[in-house]
Amino acid sequence: MRSHEFDAAQKEGVYRAIHLRRDVRRQFLPDPVPTDVLARVLHAAHHAPSVGFSQPWNFVVLQDRSIRQTVRASFQRAHEAAAQLFSPEKREQYLSFKLEGILEAPLNLCVTYDPSRFGPVVIGRTSNPMMGIFSSVCAVQTLWLAARAEGLGVGWVSILDEGDLKSAMNLPAGVTPVAYLCLGYVSHFPEAPELETAQWLPRMELQDLVAVDRWEQGCQEAWPSLHQEIHAEAKLLGSRR
Amino acid sequence: MRSHEFDAAQKEGVYRAIHLRRDVRRQFLPDPVPTDVLARVLHAAHHAPSVGFSQPWNFVVLQDRSIRQTVRASFQRAHEAAAQLFSPEKREQYLSFKLEGILEAPLNLCVTYDPSRFGPVVIGRTSNPMMGIFSSVCAVQTLWLAARAEGLGVGWVSILDEGDLKSAMNLPAGVTPVAYLCLGYVSHFPEAPELETAQWLPRMELQDLVAVDRWEQGCQEAWPSLHQEIHAEAKLLGSRR
Repeated sequence: MRSHEFDAAQKEGVYRAIHLRRDVRRQFLPDPVPTDVLARVLHAAHHAPSVGFSQPWNFVVLQDRSIRQTVRASFQRAHEAAAQLFSPEKREQYLSFKLEGILEAPLNLCVTYDPSRFGPVVIGRTSNPMMGIFSSVCAVQTLWLAARAEGLGVGWVSILDEGDLKSAMNLPAGVTPVAYLCLGYVSHFPEAPELETAQWLPRMELQDLVAVDRWEQGCQEAWPSLHQEIHAEAKLLGSRR
Repeated sequence: MRSHEFDAAQKEGVYRAIHLRRDVRRQFLPDPVPTDVLARVLHAAHHAPSVGFSQPWNFVVLQDRSIRQTVRASFQRAHEAAAQLFSPEKREQYLSFKLEGILEAPLNLCVTYDPSRFGPVVIGRTSNPMMGIFSSVCAVQTLWLAARAEGLGVGWVSILDEGDLKSAMNLPAGVTPVAYLCLGYVSHFPEAPELETAQWLPRMELQDLVAVDRWEQGCQEAWPSLHQEIHAEAKLLGSRR
């Protein structure tokens, strides 16, 4: 074991959180989330990487049913508009998917981005202004993995109008809602992502997505032993399902 | 224990990865990263959430020294330009920070975003086109946490010109480099983020960042027991340092 490597059980925990995490929409139980559990997953989010240590996030925890109904109505409008973008044969399947659990989940949670936090000049945000909002996205994924370890399901609802969200939660003009999440205990975590199970899209083969040094240098030719290990790991992950 | 909650050791692994993860720039060891370890962290990234299961990422693993020297030169130019944005008293401290380990790390890794993947219409990307690039950001943070469990340090170098990166790796016109990472084993992981230790910026108090239902409803007044648990967890995390 390398000196800073975690022991087997702790490593297994990290990989289980990553591989068993799901985007949950339909399995929520009404059980309340204890405040100590909620505090831990919020602290996890707060320990995400942030550009220049700017910590540009805020967290709005939503319990109020009328605000959530307003958000649910915004989803419904955006969802119906989105359906028109799909071809007629795809549209029917699109409309069959459940894409939010806003009212079923015991809690909703909005993670925001405040570009003025510790600004205007932030270390590392000078070449790419998007680095700021990326920090809030890292907070979302960190919270999601901690939640999985706690047995909590999380669903990211992205079919929402930003203006509707801002007015529902009374966000200040400069603050952007980055992620609107549904959060709660679940009856079960689906074995695979729902869109994979529904054969909407396949899981891509990782080895086809890895290049070496330059885009055109595929892993198979340029680094055969890495290609082989990627393939072996894919088989192992598949066999554990 | 709740039915889908991880056992104590596995949960500890997840939280240790989150709280002990660092943005590494100066502690890299030259030891090569074994291909099986690299394969596991790449699979972790590939199992990040992606909008509409679009998996819009590619991974360019860089070993070639001359390409990395080109990227290092791009950093140097962007870094000098960035320094001019800070006030004279801040500029000296800014220039004292080491902000990349491009040549010291045994590997560099670029995570990209391809908006055309499974497009043009992607479920969940219809209201907010940024959801696509957010998926690649989630892949970065997922890889970062898996790497920490493996004992690997990761540093995200964001002070780079996008055009320089694209030409160095010969990325196709439509593909965006989202994160340029340095990766390798390390002598140690710093106890706290370097910009915190250097007193550039303080760690914010999480309880000041949490609102309930609406932006103006602070946690302390609107949900005192949650406020208390957040405070208690902060003390616990502080005492473990």
